[in-house]
Amino acid sequence: MEKTVKIVIDTLGGDNGAKVCVAGAVEGLKENPNVRIILTGHEDELKNLLSEHEYDKGRIEIVNATEEITTEEHPVEAVRKKKDSSLVVGLNLVKEGKADAFISAGSSGAILAGGQFIVGRAKGVKRTPLAPILPTSTKPSLLIDCGANVDAKPEVLNQFAEMGSIYMENIMGVKNPTVAIVNIGTEEAKGNALVKETYPLLKANKHINFIGSIEARDIPAGKADVILTEAFVGNVILKMYEGMAKMILGEIKGAFLSNLKSKIGAMMVKKSLKKVLSKFNASNKGGAPLLGLNGLVVKIHGNSKEAEVISAIKQCVTFIESDVSGKIIRGLAADEEVEK
Amino acid sequence: MEKTVKIVIDTLGGDNGAKVCVAGAVEGLKENPNVRIILTGHEDELKNLLSEHEYDKGRIEIVNATEEITTEEHPVEAVRKKKDSSLVVGLNLVKEGKADAFISAGSSGAILAGGQFIVGRAKGVKRTPLAPILPTSTKPSLLIDCGANVDAKPEVLNQFAEMGSIYMENIMGVKNPTVAIVNIGTEEAKGNALVKETYPLLKANKHINFIGSIEARDIPAGKADVILTEAFVGNVILKMYEGMAKMILGEIKGAFLSNLKSKIGAMMVKKSLKKVLSKFNASNKGGAPLLGLNGLVVKIHGNSKEAEVISAIKQCVTFIESDVSGKIIRGLAADEEVEK
Repeated sequence: MEKTVKIVIDTLGGDNGAKVCVAGAVEGLKENPNVRIILTGHEDELKNLLSEHEYDKGRIEIVNATEEITTEEHPVEAVRKKKDSSLVVGLNLVKEGKADAFISAGSSGAILAGGQFIVGRAKGVKRTPLAPILPTSTKPSLLIDCGANVDAKPEVLNQFAEMGSIYMENIMGVKNPTVAIVNIGTEEAKGNALVKETYPLLKANKHINFIGSIEARDIPAGKADVILTEAFVGNVILKMYEGMAKMILGEIKGAFLSNLKSKIGAMMVKKSLKKVLSKFNASNKGGAPLLGLNGLVVKIHGNSKEAEVISAIKQCVTFIESDVSGKIIRGLAADEEVEK
Repeated sequence: MEKTVKIVIDTLGGDNGAKVCVAGAVEGLKENPNVRIILTGHEDELKNLLSEHEYDKGRIEIVNATEEITTEEHPVEAVRKKKDSSLVVGLNLVKEGKADAFISAGSSGAILAGGQFIVGRAKGVKRTPLAPILPTSTKPSLLIDCGANVDAKPEVLNQFAEMGSIYMENIMGVKNPTVAIVNIGTEEAKGNALVKETYPLLKANKHINFIGSIEARDIPAGKADVILTEAFVGNVILKMYEGMAKMILGEIKGAFLSNLKSKIGAMMVKKSLKKVLSKFNASNKGGAPLLGLNGLVVKIHGNSKEAEVISAIKQCVTFIESDVSGKIIRGLAADEEVEK
């Protein structure tokens, strides 16, 4: 018998409101027979939204929450003060063991802070990285870390390399995933102080398939499965992805609309172009997990729609069923044994 | 009478050889009547190449150099050992006052190292940043620093902000250019230790028009004239530009070729698309200057062709005629006076 996976969906804080969360939850139930869902948010609104759908009433539960945490608020303060926010209420359900996973499109900072303060770090985990999947021209890569751990220490990055490898192997099915550290050149002597100190640790780490440095220009080409970097740089990489894609596609759209001939041509290339560019669509990639917690926390993009919610549910199921958290915790514990 | 501008072109080390340097030099002379050019490299080869062109023989000189510095070599060692390389010979001409500017498509590391060791930092300059122009969806921005100054100190970044402002005002003609520091959020409290320490210095700096933090996603949108960041992050931004553009354009090309209908459509959009995408073409932007030296050193892309050489010559002329170096030195000296 399959284990039931209980997933909390935070219905407040995203750009598209509770509606997309409810629609995604209902569809997610259909696709994943062993899932049960708990929606946190305004009870009346959620009841109303649910009444528009056909679903198994025994598999969706509402837990009322009166407050909402916005992206404008200071994350740590908001998590501390707003005890009845959909985010805090939801994370407490994971903490208390009433749910296995938590999905939110709300404030990144609040999800990171809440994940660490409420759900808590697992034993042996130094820091909890946020690790999104990046589309590339070949196969998807994991970018670790884009979270709150700016100015992380070398031994923290070394742990992230292992966590990322376990994630890629179990969730993305990549055998013996390659790990590369983001650097300003590919020679071993290159880099800033952090990279220079981290490099030998990675080289000596027998639990990962370390292939050396990667220059940022090779990230979109998919030259490594796990792209390891400190959170500040990771955030820059992730946002450059977003900004560059937006700029280039905007310029192309402008070119298509510039005259009649190109407008007609654009109609003819549209279908092929859409197919290729769907690779960059975050909706089929799930969200970014916060790794190393006593439970699963997944951040989805602020402007997520129904499809992103469904992908994230599927991702949570794979994560729980593959016991990624357990593998990470046992893996890191085994390392500590060796170190002793 | 216009001042004569003497420019050295290093003809070795680039991907496309001396041929493009010679062709660019000859064309650059035609477009800039007050320029004289010194080519450093293999004398015989250069004589041969020049014999294929019509030009004013009094305005191009060859200085023989027998060695070449490659990108595979350790930059500092190469500069120290290869005294008769086209790069070292060329930089020495600037140092000795026999030339005003130096252009090279060779090893970035060697250009940076040679610029600092041979040409030398100007008085009052803490570090010499490499500052390329980035194309954006609106107007070009200056990215400062992408050079060798990884782990730079806050006061160094504060100086870079001033140098970048002077460059944008004088070379790009931007009045009162805006300066933003690359960060992981736009709130003042966000950032890593370096950004948090640099932010108040920038805020208090009366010589710049500081507008706060910029997230990487807003860089391709052109939201600031001067994009200030430490060299490691700057390098990542520059190379993400390159990598993302390559990946997305590759995907689009793939879509165009995927079937007959899209192939025909592609032919119809080609002209408009080319026009729009020429914005991303580095050839009309000149190279990246290494600011704050006792002379001008400009790095052009390794795969530069004739057009890039011509742009870089034009850029050197504007730089020298606008006395950007003098303005930087006097500006920083004035700051020191105030500090005292």
